[in-house]
Amino acid sequence: MTASKTPSGVFAPVATVFGDDGELDLAGFARNMEIYSSTELDGIVILGSNGEYALLDTEEKMRLIEAGVNAVNRRKVVMAGTGAESTRGTIALTQRAAEMGIDYALVVTPHYYKPRYDHLAYADHFKAVADASPVPVLIYVMAAYTGVDLASALVCELAGYPNIAGIKDSGGNAPKVGEMIAGAAHGFAVLAGSANFLYPALCLGATGGILALGNVAPSQCKEIQRCFEDGNHERARDLQLKMLAPNAAVTTKHGIPGLKIAMEYVGLTAGVPRAPLRPLNEREADDVRQTMASAGIGRLV
Amino acid sequence: MTASKTPSGVFAPVATVFGDDGELDLAGFARNMEIYSSTELDGIVILGSNGEYALLDTEEKMRLIEAGVNAVNRRKVVMAGTGAESTRGTIALTQRAAEMGIDYALVVTPHYYKPRYDHLAYADHFKAVADASPVPVLIYVMAAYTGVDLASALVCELAGYPNIAGIKDSGGNAPKVGEMIAGAAHGFAVLAGSANFLYPALCLGATGGILALGNVAPSQCKEIQRCFEDGNHERARDLQLKMLAPNAAVTTKHGIPGLKIAMEYVGLTAGVPRAPLRPLNEREADDVRQTMASAGIGRLV
Amino acid sequence: MTASKTPSGVFAPVATVFGDDGELDLAGFARNMEIYSSTELDGIVILGSNGEYALLDTEEKMRLIEAGVNAVNRRKVVMAGTGAESTRGTIALTQRAAEMGIDYALVVTPHYYKPRYDHLAYADHFKAVADASPVPVLIYVMAAYTGVDLASALVCELAGYPNIAGIKDSGGNAPKVGEMIAGAAHGFAVLAGSANFLYPALCLGATGGILALGNVAPSQCKEIQRCFEDGNHERARDLQLKMLAPNAAVTTKHGIPGLKIAMEYVGLTAGVPRAPLRPLNEREADDVRQTMASAGIGRLV
Amino acid sequence: MTASKTPSGVFAPVATVFGDDGELDLAGFARNMEIYSSTELDGIVILGSNGEYALLDTEEKMRLIEAGVNAVNRRKVVMAGTGAESTRGTIALTQRAAEMGIDYALVVTPHYYKPRYDHLAYADHFKAVADASPVPVLIYVMAAYTGVDLASALVCELAGYPNIAGIKDSGGNAPKVGEMIAGAAHGFAVLAGSANFLYPALCLGATGGILALGNVAPSQCKEIQRCFEDGNHERARDLQLKMLAPNAAVTTKHGIPGLKIAMEYVGLTAGVPRAPLRPLNEREADDVRQTMASAGIGRLV
Repeated sequence: MTASKTPSGVFAPVATVFGDDGELDLAGFARNMEIYSSTELDGIVILGSNGEYALLDTEEKMRLIEAGVNAVNRRKVVMAGTGAESTRGTIALTQRAAEMGIDYALVVTPHYYKPRYDHLAYADHFKAVADASPVPVLIYVMAAYTGVDLASALVCELAGYPNIAGIKDSGGNAPKVGEMIAGAAHGFAVLAGSANFLYPALCLGATGGILALGNVAPSQCKEIQRCFEDGNHERARDLQLKMLAPNAAVTTKHGIPGLKIAMEYVGLTAGVPRAPLRPLNEREADDVRQTMASAGIGRLV
Repeated sequence: MTASKTPSGVFAPVATVFGDDGELDLAGFARNMEIYSSTELDGIVILGSNGEYALLDTEEKMRLIEAGVNAVNRRKVVMAGTGAESTRGTIALTQRAAEMGIDYALVVTPHYYKPRYDHLAYADHFKAVADASPVPVLIYVMAAYTGVDLASALVCELAGYPNIAGIKDSGGNAPKVGEMIAGAAHGFAVLAGSANFLYPALCLGATGGILALGNVAPSQCKEIQRCFEDGNHERARDLQLKMLAPNAAVTTKHGIPGLKIAMEYVGLTAGVPRAPLRPLNEREADDVRQTMASAGIGRLV
Repeated sequence: MTASKTPSGVFAPVATVFGDDGELDLAGFARNMEIYSSTELDGIVILGSNGEYALLDTEEKMRLIEAGVNAVNRRKVVMAGTGAESTRGTIALTQRAAEMGIDYALVVTPHYYKPRYDHLAYADHFKAVADASPVPVLIYVMAAYTGVDLASALVCELAGYPNIAGIKDSGGNAPKVGEMIAGAAHGFAVLAGSANFLYPALCLGATGGILALGNVAPSQCKEIQRCFEDGNHERARDLQLKMLAPNAAVTTKHGIPGLKIAMEYVGLTAGVPRAPLRPLNEREADDVRQTMASAGIGRLV
Repeated sequence: MTASKTPSGVFAPVATVFGDDGELDLAGFARNMEIYSSTELDGIVILGSNGEYALLDTEEKMRLIEAGVNAVNRRKVVMAGTGAESTRGTIALTQRAAEMGIDYALVVTPHYYKPRYDHLAYADHFKAVADASPVPVLIYVMAAYTGVDLASALVCELAGYPNIAGIKDSGGNAPKVGEMIAGAAHGFAVLAGSANFLYPALCLGATGGILALGNVAPSQCKEIQRCFEDGNHERARDLQLKMLAPNAAVTTKHGIPGLKIAMEYVGLTAGVPRAPLRPLNEREADDVRQTMASAGIGRLV
């Protein structure tokens, strides 16, 4: 699939699958990608935060991208997380991933030395990565994990830079979504980073979202978007409110371990998270499953 | 004006006016209230954060409420901030204000001993105040000033309690607005606490907002609401984006000192803030005025 | 007792005593002050955070100061918390308290509009209060409650201003204690705001502390100071480590409700805290008492 | 040098040296190690935060450890930072580093998924690493960069676990230093993570420090320790206060870029930091040099 100028629609930041031996289960991963390719999803994101990218080594990352690109086989847009802490490490990873055929690179904000990373440091970083990347770059802001939230003014400056196509912001702050859309160049995509504010983000002009919930409820997420586009605001809103509980179950409340339980529940191959992430206990897992059932989320296959 | 069960519409958290001697300028304040009574505003809030309530003594608060209630003379809904740090202090202030004729009491979260205030402490506090108040109570969450953000589950619990009519939340967090609306009892009002997320809040089911920007751009704020109600989402969104800069000028960027410059700009009586708040310098004041002009905000009188 | 230029020694930020009816129990309070006057304490602080000052109205504050000054009857140094959110309110309270005979005014940082209070706002505030105060002023930094931590450079600037005698800093940050002492004018007192860092603060040059634990373990706190002054560092350190658990019981772990249980345990008049503070449950109260016993803290009377 | 059971003394977390081409300058690095081996330092730490470990790839890390171990040639204790985000990645890195001859592994807290990392996650992580490590493990808490501060109770639990030899805590919180020392097993080393609280940490029972300032002022840092050990508290304190400004210049104020200017100033090979870290501008660099000169810090060679 050729990357459109402005990425839009609903994307699933797919989970990495580990076998019982703790190694990558690429067959299970490819099976999930095959299933996603038959859903309404507009695309997938490999190596996002939900993909436990921070717990993988470089060669594992490359094998996942290769497996994902091959399994999807151009039926969907494929993005991959290629951010590293250093600018040169990010460029190296982005270029390798681009060679493998991804459509967009999702580049998380460097964050370890955050007290030293000012406006100029971030501007230079993202411009250097965009200059060196064969594919369009999406900025990735995930303050809950990184402690870094880029100011709207910086995002708007980067929005006008060549080869920077958009931003995924996971914060849910409605004023900031508005500021970015009001100030960014035309064609710059603001993508909601969580399904818990997809509808209001669309109302403000976001072009879609990269949604953990999209992994297990792709049609429900797409229906919010479709209702919005059809002007059926009342139904979009009702669906948005209905998706809050299952979204929390696979994000803020139970995290990646919760997402893996939910994946299993809908028929995907899940496995367990990698340490120091810990699997849910049985009570927590039941909470995930019941929340899914209560929201009417059923099997994908 | 009799308080409707569910407060809705656009409310201005009015500024307190100080004379050159540092004392209350009640005549200037009453003049503003007279002007507001002829606008499209649905009501006013005396002694909100914008009213510098934290910088006033108790008798000053009473004189302001009296002056405000008299000046408005039932043409608009009148709310007043009656929160204090102690439960008994809050009740005393609420009862005195109710006797003076306010329609709703806006009760800020106690916050000084916040490490000790847990779910139960806040639940007990708001229930005790609601029990003792002659008028309906609105919960007031203003985390930027108090450091306290009530969990959605607590808000939803309180939403079902008698005489608790709604909440003003100034945080702008879209998922939380959704959670409160999804979980609260029917008829519980969620009011946007800042004009920078009025439109997305309305989309999610908020009934209106208490908006600093409403002090200087009441018709623009009301038009966002009207467009939303008429299903004219595109225009509502455009107006919302257009109001972000003037809203920032009177809130996050320049605060109450900025609001007072903007008030003067539109023909209201403003004066200077009370120390330790400091007036803007001339460059900052120019920024406020130019931002107002650029957004097409003109004189009220 | 005449205030020395540099306040030094161990001070107890005394609790306010409420009767079963929720009103001030001034007799119980005076009894405690009488007891404290016979201990090794160098002085007391009325209306500190431990005194629930934020939960009292102005007239209650005045009655407490009066009762305290009279009960102590110049046997100990008497300080009182006179900070309010506005500069003029702080000055008014400070002047009234000074007339009643306090030796020092402890002035907490204004904090409600903290995003607007910059270096200059705080500098102006404390200088105006110092100018207007008949008694020396101590700056009070209590970031856990106020969210405000004054930069060392600002403290050092204020340290050179007439009638500003010192600072109580409750943060426990050793580098900051060092910076203040390194940069402040000679004679400026840095007082530890919690007994959990009294000894290292003394090592760095602090002149003493205002210590919640001083309310229930005055002789132990004084012994740390005495050992330090005698060059008996090993014993000072051992006592410091031994006091960490009881200190936590009456501060970070159980707060003011814990302090009141501990006060009862040592024979003082305590009562319950004022809402929204809630009394400890029986399990928590037992924890306080056992922690006191384990640390060898016994009855004062 | 064989690792003693309890690491003690002053350690320099050495900088990584990059050439003009952005690649490792191992010759320059080895030259610095040679110089350090002739100082009073007790040891060095390769790949600490000051070593820009987060900006290096795995093979670069290995080459640095190899170069460092060879250059020091057992004249000093050699530690290396071997923490990664995953438990298995940390173990792999630790085992490779141990084979190369390091004496201790310094293991930073995983932090990317910090909302999911609870007491048990961290306990399991550090125990698994300690079990698998051929050399003793030091826990590394660096909250300013990671956003993670381990509770004293957790540290004390880990202090009793085999092969966990100590902790480097960079926070400067005196009460926490005390709590760890009061609660940890005998022989567990608490090391100050910054020179701005070395002396008070020693007073409380710390066994030394891993100090950025040790890179450029090793003898001054050692003199603080020696004065403390000799009971010369007054001189230890004076030196501590004198070292606050140069310490800030190479840490909180100017960071790693400041450290590299200071290194050049004392005759070491420094180079520039790796992007997104940015070199200081000339004004900032002058500030570093003048601060060094004012504190009497001169050339090492």
